[in-house]
Amino acid sequence: MKCEVVAVGTELLLGQIVDTNSSWIGEQLALVGIDSHFQTKVGDNWGRIKSVITQALDRSDAVIVCGGLGPTQDDITRDVIADIMGVPLERDEAIVEKIRTIFGGRGRPMPENNLRQADVPRGASIITEMPGTAPGLVCPIGDKMLYAVPGVPYEMQEMVLGTVLPDLVRRAGIAATIKSRTLRTWGDSESGLAEKLHDEFERLEREGGATIAFLASGMEGLKVRLTAKASSEAEADQILAEEEARVRTIIGPVVFGVDDDTMESVVLDLLKKQSLTLGLAESVTGGMIASRICDMPGASAVLRGAIVSYASEVKFDVLGVPEGPVVNEPTVRAMVEGVCRVLKADVGIAVTGVAGPGPQDGEEPGVVWMATSVDGEVHATRAKFPFDRNRMRQFTTITVLNALRLRLLARLGA
Amino acid sequence: MKCEVVAVGTELLLGQIVDTNSSWIGEQLALVGIDSHFQTKVGDNWGRIKSVITQALDRSDAVIVCGGLGPTQDDITRDVIADIMGVPLERDEAIVEKIRTIFGGRGRPMPENNLRQADVPRGASIITEMPGTAPGLVCPIGDKMLYAVPGVPYEMQEMVLGTVLPDLVRRAGIAATIKSRTLRTWGDSESGLAEKLHDEFERLEREGGATIAFLASGMEGLKVRLTAKASSEAEADQILAEEEARVRTIIGPVVFGVDDDTMESVVLDLLKKQSLTLGLAESVTGGMIASRICDMPGASAVLRGAIVSYASEVKFDVLGVPEGPVVNEPTVRAMVEGVCRVLKADVGIAVTGVAGPGPQDGEEPGVVWMATSVDGEVHATRAKFPFDRNRMRQFTTITVLNALRLRLLARLGA
Repeated sequence: MKCEVVAVGTELLLGQIVDTNSSWIGEQLALVGIDSHFQTKVGDNWGRIKSVITQALDRSDAVIVCGGLGPTQDDITRDVIADIMGVPLERDEAIVEKIRTIFGGRGRPMPENNLRQADVPRGASIITEMPGTAPGLVCPIGDKMLYAVPGVPYEMQEMVLGTVLPDLVRRAGIAATIKSRTLRTWGDSESGLAEKLHDEFERLEREGGATIAFLASGMEGLKVRLTAKASSEAEADQILAEEEARVRTIIGPVVFGVDDDTMESVVLDLLKKQSLTLGLAESVTGGMIASRICDMPGASAVLRGAIVSYASEVKFDVLGVPEGPVVNEPTVRAMVEGVCRVLKADVGIAVTGVAGPGPQDGEEPGVVWMATSVDGEVHATRAKFPFDRNRMRQFTTITVLNALRLRLLARLGA
Repeated sequence: MKCEVVAVGTELLLGQIVDTNSSWIGEQLALVGIDSHFQTKVGDNWGRIKSVITQALDRSDAVIVCGGLGPTQDDITRDVIADIMGVPLERDEAIVEKIRTIFGGRGRPMPENNLRQADVPRGASIITEMPGTAPGLVCPIGDKMLYAVPGVPYEMQEMVLGTVLPDLVRRAGIAATIKSRTLRTWGDSESGLAEKLHDEFERLEREGGATIAFLASGMEGLKVRLTAKASSEAEADQILAEEEARVRTIIGPVVFGVDDDTMESVVLDLLKKQSLTLGLAESVTGGMIASRICDMPGASAVLRGAIVSYASEVKFDVLGVPEGPVVNEPTVRAMVEGVCRVLKADVGIAVTGVAGPGPQDGEEPGVVWMATSVDGEVHATRAKFPFDRNRMRQFTTITVLNALRLRLLARLGA
């Protein structure tokens, strides 16, 4: 069973709205095992909408058209569908009543335009869910199916989950369950991971089972997504568990979490488990590490606070760093020791570097010194990031958190 | 001139990533007056990518293909393009060198796979901007143009703005200039602004000139976008200047900046102009205010630093807040006075509040106390934000920065 998605609306082409509907529908289709090979955005133009829908019906078994069901003159999806079906539109009096009731409930007069929304192509049926004033349509066309849903996300979602997907699954006679699991990694490139997993890719291609896909996600790391298709949920879970174990054997230490884990949630959990508190001394990251950790519920059990020592004098006065140049190993060591002392924290992180645009203390923009302190023992490393100001701060944040993660794991004896 | 956009990547169809690239490109095309009638997403499949690109070249003058230029086996865009052009791929040694240099700079070994990215279809040329390891391609096909750019948004954007758009505009011989200007606002709702600007909307509809559109942008505020189409750049600028003056007369004080201004850049400029330094005491925002300010080049001239006093004891010990409950007016006042003293800052900001999930000090989640200190005079206000944890922190950040902005403007006598 193949099902395409067509999103209608000139505002989508102009970039005034991002088309999140197609992505959402694509995800739902994938979850029930229906292939979606093409997704098309088209403007509010009769000929072009008609050509896109006709082509989609031609190469797929079903099409979900999203948008263009509203009350204005621009909204021509239902007219085009009637044209494609070669039937007239007929006004549905039950829908007219529903629309009148909705307007009555809001205490607003109903513009006559709205009655256009009650027009239904002959032979089509109405989707029973109707959270707004635009009804969705189920239109059989030969042996193909065409579904029309509004572009308003919550209206669309209610109709797709309530009517469209169940109808597609029934027609497809689908028994299979599809599940996926995402391994979150940091510390290797996409091509590096691909090379390491090359044999496993080949094995999966020969023997089947799960599939593996990479997803580069900037400072969120590189995601490795495992997907399994099976006849039951339990069997899919089993396949995923086995595949995760195999992948972890190969790329082990770069995996920092699974699914919704983030680097900061993983570090926070490790600190909580070991009843350790955290203090941060941030220069070049300027509060970004603290800000990400505070975004986690439960941060208050672990985070003492942070000293954002942007001006050198704050490093000297508040953190007790000896006066002098501040982008070097002795400074980052003094910062992390200072912040543990001032904030009474068990574990510390410190970063100092050159955000640019110019060099500082003889170092080029992009140079960062990072330190972690665990049980009073300080580790410091230097890195040079070739990114712009903001990306350099983001990569510093996740790199130093990852360094702390590895030390906390080692401390646990894991 | 018609230009389509084709986004390549199975992850787009599966909804693992929302295709924001097409929207962004669509917006850029619209701004220079190039029509984009279709935008298509297609998976990593040779036959389907070929059919989509071929159809796009058939019905439009130019096509921008986005994604599938990476180093892995999935990335086949350049191979398909060579197939469509009927030419072989040739390895570009200059690109090989560039890729080696990028890997060298990161201190990582370069997997051989990456060299595939240096393969160029014969007859195509390289886009000079190359922020990542994947070069973009300019491919003439008959009298049509095909551009290939990576799917990584910042790489794509740099290439589209630097090479693709200028090339399209030149080929289209576009005479009309379309320019736009965005007024950034904070402090009024979309419907509130629409009501205030109602008469101006009606005037523009009658008399023409600029157009006005709203764009709600969360913690970036509400953008009011003015667009003018004219026969010359000077004329467009003139129309925009007049329209901006009219709109400012109507909605004046909520406008905090123009175009690329952000709340933090505007506050930073006001501080710089008055030679004032800034210190921050952040509790519930957890370093977010500092982090946003540090993202601005030149922050070091103004920002002394921040004390993220997440634990109450840090408020008492480091900032000198009297012990007791910490979500109230006396605490936020003591925090802002303390941070100005400890960091030797002229101007201070302090925030303390309840991030939730539970209540604290008798206050519900969402309650925030904010204070600003200018010339030693402290103003404090209480707010209750009905948002989730992260949005509450974001709205606190921009609200307190806006409060400081208004005080700094008043101080300037503006």
